[in-house]
Amino acid sequence: MDLDSAPKTLHLDDLNVGDVFLSRAQAVDAQQIVQFASQFDPQPFHLDEEAAKDTYFQGLAASGWHTAAITMRLMVESFPLAQGLIGAGVELSWSQPTRPGDVLRVKSTILSITPSRSKPDRAIILFETITLNQRDEAVQKLTSRIVAFRRPQGDALRTPA
Amino acid sequence: MDLDSAPKTLHLDDLNVGDVFLSRAQAVDAQQIVQFASQFDPQPFHLDEEAAKDTYFQGLAASGWHTAAITMRLMVESFPLAQGLIGAGVELSWSQPTRPGDVLRVKSTILSITPSRSKPDRAIILFETITLNQRDEAVQKLTSRIVAFRRPQGDALRTPA
Repeated sequence: MDLDSAPKTLHLDDLNVGDVFLSRAQAVDAQQIVQFASQFDPQPFHLDEEAAKDTYFQGLAASGWHTAAITMRLMVESFPLAQGLIGAGVELSWSQPTRPGDVLRVKSTILSITPSRSKPDRAIILFETITLNQRDEAVQKLTSRIVAFRRPQGDALRTPA
Repeated sequence: MDLDSAPKTLHLDDLNVGDVFLSRAQAVDAQQIVQFASQFDPQPFHLDEEAAKDTYFQGLAASGWHTAAITMRLMVESFPLAQGLIGAGVELSWSQPTRPGDVLRVKSTILSITPSRSKPDRAIILFETITLNQRDEAVQKLTSRIVAFRRPQGDALRTPA
């Protein structure tokens, strides 16, 4: 990691309830779907278009864990939290599968900020991330509890916009 | 998929609250951790042993999404549900990271079985999956809601043991 080229990082001081973070778009093709599933979720509806036709999904569908992993990639890029995105727990639901040719992007919103009682340098951010396809349909909803840290004293403060 | 060689599949008729399913063990090495993270969770503590030393994790740690994906692989193998493992939603928490050299396995338990009101051929299974390392420490707890289907009428019934 070349830290000099990393995007500007965010501290707890920079965050407010209601802040929204948008990612770039990421295309997903059949080869990626099959490759992920072969390694982590080898079920017929994730592996083979023909075999998938007679299943619940009625065609090739990405593993929900693949959608979750792509979501994480897009979150890391679009929410550059200082000290990284460290999640203690999440809730995750899939309203429809990711399909070959889909183009995903994520929209994240800060739902709440709960300061730590014992450690004044940090808070728990409740973070909702909706993964959307190219038709603006939600394919996944993720709610994460993420640790955010205050800017260390002595660091230059960012001038509010 | 060669269905002839697939393990015997389970239907709703075969499942009871309290049933436990154990997987095989799966070793995880540093190369796999870095490979997954490069694609889906490119943060220093998942990418480089040296860079990870000064982070929250104090050494190379697998992405939680990597632990989740390995868990899914072991669930698919150890809980061969007819028509596949189709999850509508999950809750997921990580009590510690997976580290290079860890050997993971999963232990799943049926917590409850809720018949569908509108569709008598199916039920929602509440399924708890604990991912354990080689020291029997939990690294992840996953609670899934999974659809299970009754054995189609006309199929040979399995003789109870």
